[in-house]
Order: sequence, then structure tokens, then C-alpha cells
Amino acid sequence: MKINDLARELQLSKATISKALKDSYEISFETKQRVMDLARRLNYTPNPYASSLRKRSSKTIAVVVPEVADSFFSLSINGIESVAKEKGFHVLIYLTHEALCMEQSILRDFSNGRVDGVLLSVSQETDNHQHIEALCSNHIPLVLFDRVCPDIATAKVQTDDQASGYKATKHLLECGCSNIAFLSIGKNLSISQNREQGFIRALTDAEQPLAQHHLLHCPADENEAYAHIRQLLCSANRPDGIIGSVEKLATLSYSVCHELQLRIPADIKIVGFSNMKTAALLNPSLTTVTQPAFEMGQTAAHLLFCALEKRRFNLKEENRVLPSVLVKRGSTGF
Amino acid sequence: MKINDLARELQLSKATISKALKDSYEISFETKQRVMDLARRLNYTPNPYASSLRKRSSKTIAVVVPEVADSFFSLSINGIESVAKEKGFHVLIYLTHEALCMEQSILRDFSNGRVDGVLLSVSQETDNHQHIEALCSNHIPLVLFDRVCPDIATAKVQTDDQASGYKATKHLLECGCSNIAFLSIGKNLSISQNREQGFIRALTDAEQPLAQHHLLHCPADENEAYAHIRQLLCSANRPDGIIGSVEKLATLSYSVCHELQLRIPADIKIVGFSNMKTAALLNPSLTTVTQPAFEMGQTAAHLLFCALEKRRFNLKEENRVLPSVLVKRGSTGF
Repeated sequence: MKINDLARELQLSKATISKALKDSYEISFETKQRVMDLARRLNYTPNPYASSLRKRSSKTIAVVVPEVADSFFSLSINGIESVAKEKGFHVLIYLTHEALCMEQSILRDFSNGRVDGVLLSVSQETDNHQHIEALCSNHIPLVLFDRVCPDIATAKVQTDDQASGYKATKHLLECGCSNIAFLSIGKNLSISQNREQGFIRALTDAEQPLAQHHLLHCPADENEAYAHIRQLLCSANRPDGIIGSVEKLATLSYSVCHELQLRIPADIKIVGFSNMKTAALLNPSLTTVTQPAFEMGQTAAHLLFCALEKRRFNLKEENRVLPSVLVKRGSTGF
Repeated sequence: MKINDLARELQLSKATISKALKDSYEISFETKQRVMDLARRLNYTPNPYASSLRKRSSKTIAVVVPEVADSFFSLSINGIESVAKEKGFHVLIYLTHEALCMEQSILRDFSNGRVDGVLLSVSQETDNHQHIEALCSNHIPLVLFDRVCPDIATAKVQTDDQASGYKATKHLLECGCSNIAFLSIGKNLSISQNREQGFIRALTDAEQPLAQHHLLHCPADENEAYAHIRQLLCSANRPDGIIGSVEKLATLSYSVCHELQLRIPADIKIVGFSNMKTAALLNPSLTTVTQPAFEMGQTAAHLLFCALEKRRFNLKEENRVLPSVLVKRGSTGF
């Protein structure tokens, strides 16, 4: 079914049909109705590629995240979609699986108008930002959320990572821990760096020594990360407290403790950065730093739509920081 | 950066540039090299919409699922992506949030070549299939997985839902339950119907009565579903066993039991259809029917690529059933 068929059937020019379908003021109400009715009856849908080329709008935004198995991302996507739905936009979700080459390939795909704007949380491997700068220089609005790049001049939505790292560490110290390990993924990630800085600052403030091997950078692969944590918990200088700076590091620590028959919280206390609904149902229930994931997604999407709707809105000036909450539970003796 | 700029810079015609970029046999090797080199240097990317119109290929497949918070879907997406990556395709993930109107809107968006093929698991609300039939009649290859529609003539990838429902029920009967409730979402869903049939058949085979109010269809909204389960567990004829036919119904049952201080498994035994990595870490650990989620995604993607690559491949003849596994844990006394 093409515009040609509609034109032939109604004995109108292609230009008239096209204008009628776009609700142009040049076309009479009656003609528009005839065209619309037939289009509906014949199940005609305009070609999205061709009309995107004309209008330069795909009514689509992209969300690029490392994974969806982490509850932070699935919740923040819900926040993003709640805003997009109001605006009548589709949301395309792309997963990088923590790989820089995937992230580069996905962003390259956006460089010519496939989507109107992009929300990005960078991968664990992302240690250079040329592909992100290329996107920005193509004038595609970009908002970074959670895992941001400080040196990219665009909007950022983050949580108070350093303060959260500090709070989690202070809580473990108050629970009697004197030998705390901080587990993170990817040295390059803003969230790893900031949460780790909070950890170190809390130890310094409490005049506690920092054992270098207690800053554990885990690989993306879960089996390898498990092996790293297992090695740490089998070492002579075994930590009595763990901060898992992303969700899977906390649950992997639980699995290792189960295997090694270490009792939580008696032998070792654990705090995890997590939005898991089942945190309260774990054995024992998990003390968490809970991020405002849904709200962060909402805020990021709001900023993106401001940039899409208002010509003068300057994304570069936006930097939002939303506070996280420490929820004390069984894994730290509560 | 446009093809015009390349043409001007190299003093070649636009047609020559275009053919060189497409590696046409009409253009000499030297010219191609000059064009490619400059294109790379100037960071030129062909317009995907325009080139899609020509090639009728977007090198993109879509996955449409109700949500990603359920571990079945996040794992099956990983399976799909593992195949797409090999083929050099991008995967776009769309969420329906269990709403028919979202599913309709998303599928309408595919009707003119935005993606080359679609993998779909229908929403809880989906009770008519016109939008799915419209997609098929537009000759866009479609594979249904997990939540399928028996009356749509296309490939289906499922697990042995009826046998799994039977197995879960038989296990609870063997553990001493005599009053089992079956929780599901959406009466229309293939997985709800088939798992429920297995449940009823197991009760019949064991000559156990079926209390109608023990077939509980829960709404999509989690708070409402919680209230439904709470009401069931507060009723005079409280069940001594629960089958949660999707993941969130099992974890919500845990939360209700915690609130009502019902002991699992002493007061009530629970089996959940779930792929949660944390099933073993719950309090108590959760007995699960575990689906081959990753493999189901892989199989569905393989079938889709067969249809994309082989002209004669007939999707209508494909119906794959992969077996699930019952993993006995603490919630049924193991």
C-alpha cells in the first residue's frame, strides 16, 4: 500500500494525499476526511524512514545501558519510559554488556538520525570517550546518567556516590568492623571512583589503616568476579566487612560466604549498593545503599525532552545529584 | 558531513562516491581507497534511513517483552544478543509493561522496515492478535517465545509449561501439601493456561479436590497483586502450598508470609517459576522451576536469522519446546 494507490483510488494528486495525511491547512476538511478514511481502511502506514528524513524526527529515544539484570537499570528504565510515554515517544533499549566495542558500535548507529536523543550509562570498559564526543558533535542530545564521564560537556544525572561510599563505610565501622574491603568493577567508572573515594575518606576520618589489597577491582565476568572474591575471603588477612559497590558484587559475596560457611553478619558484615526488591528476603536480609533509580531515570528523560523541545535549553549546564539512602538490615546485624 | 563534501573534496561525481562506498565492481581499487580513506578521516557515516530504504535492511532485530525486571527475560535477551552479535546485528529492546496498547503501538512502529525481524513475548493483557497478524501480513519475520499465541501461524519457542506445572504440583503433594493454590497473571497467557492445566491434571491424578478460589489470577500492578495474595493467605481456608507461575508471584508470596509471620516451609510451602540467581540466597532458599531462558532466547534468534537468510525457510513449521528443571530447595523443606 503506497501513497500512489491512495492517489489513484481517490483521483487526487500525490502531493494532495501527502498534505492531507500531514493535516496541512492547505487541504479542505472534506478532502482530509476522505483521505484519512481510505488510509485507515487500506491499513496504510507512512514509511517511517522516509518521513524521518523529512521531519528529522523519529519520535524515538535510545537508552544505552550495560545490562538489565541489575535492578538499578531496570528501575531507571521504568522511570525513563514513564516520561517518554507521556511525550508519545518510543524507547529503544540497547545493552553494551559492559563492552566498549559494543558501546562504540551502538553509538555509531545513532550518528544519522535513527533516534532523536540518547540516554547513556557507560560500560565498565569505557576508558576513552571519542565515540561519545562524536555523538555530541553530531548534535544528538545526550544525557549521561549514573555512570557518567566528567569530561564530556553534557547533562549528567548522578547520585551522591562519594557521600554514599562514606556512609556505608562509617556504618560498618560503627558495627565494629576494623578490616573492610571495597569491591568495585572497572577502575575507570565514575561510580567506582567516587564510591571508593568516600570509602577511603571514611577510613581516614576514623584513623583506620587502608590495606591496598582490600580495594578489589573485579572483572565483568561473573565467574571470574566470584573467583576474585573467593580468593579475598580465603586470604590470611580476611576482611570482616565488605562493601559491594554494585549489586552483583554483594550477591556474589553472599554466595562465596555460603560456600565457605562464613556467617553473615557474625564473621563478616556486608553492605551492597542495590535496588533489589528481594534485598529484604535474602538470608540474611541485605543492608543496602538504595539509589533513587526510578527518579534518576525520570530526571534524565526530562532533561533530554527539554533539549528536544526547547531550542535554547543548554544541556551542558545541567548536573543533577540525587541522594541515596542507607537501609540497615540483617547483613550488618540489624 | 555529506556525500557532496566527499565529491567536492575528491573532484569525483556523487554517483562515483556512492558506488565506491558500496564497494561496487564498477569503481577502480585506487578510487575506492581514496574515497574510503577520506570518508574515514572525515568521520563520514552513510545515512541509515536512506540506505535502509535502498537495501531494505536495517541490520537490526527487535525484542518485544513485557519487562526486564523478571530474570527470565533478562537472560533470554542475553541469549538473543549472543546470536545477533555473531551476525553483526543490533538488538533493540522494547518493553510493553504488560499493556496491550503499548504492544500495539510498538508493533505498528515496525510495519515499514524499521527492523528486519521481531522476537515477541506477549503482554499479560493481550487478548486479541490483530496487531500481531498485521505484522505477519507485512512480511516481517516474527518468532514468538515463552508467551506465545497458538493461533498465530509463525515460529514458537516455548518450555514444557504443562509438564512443569504438573511436576511442581506433584512435588508439593509429595511434600505433604493437601491444599495448594496456583497463582498466575493474565488468564489469556499461554504460560498461565498451560501451567494451570498441569496443576489441575496433577491434582486430578492424585484424586485431590480443586478449590476454585485457589486459582488466583493476579493483576499486573505489584501492590494489587500483593493485596490479592495477602487476602488469600488470610482466608479461613488458607493454602498450605503455593505455586507462583511467574517470578514476582513467588517473591511477593515471600513478602506476604514475612508480613503475616507465616513460616516457610513449616506453615506453607512455595515453588516459583524463576531464573533468579538469588533463589538459593533467599530466606529460605526458593524451590524453583527453572526455564532454559538463555537457550530459549538463542533458539528464537536462530530461527529468526534462518528466516532472514534463507528464502525458503518456513517459520510457520517451527515449534520448539525446551524442558524446564525443578530445583528443590528450602521453601519445600529441602
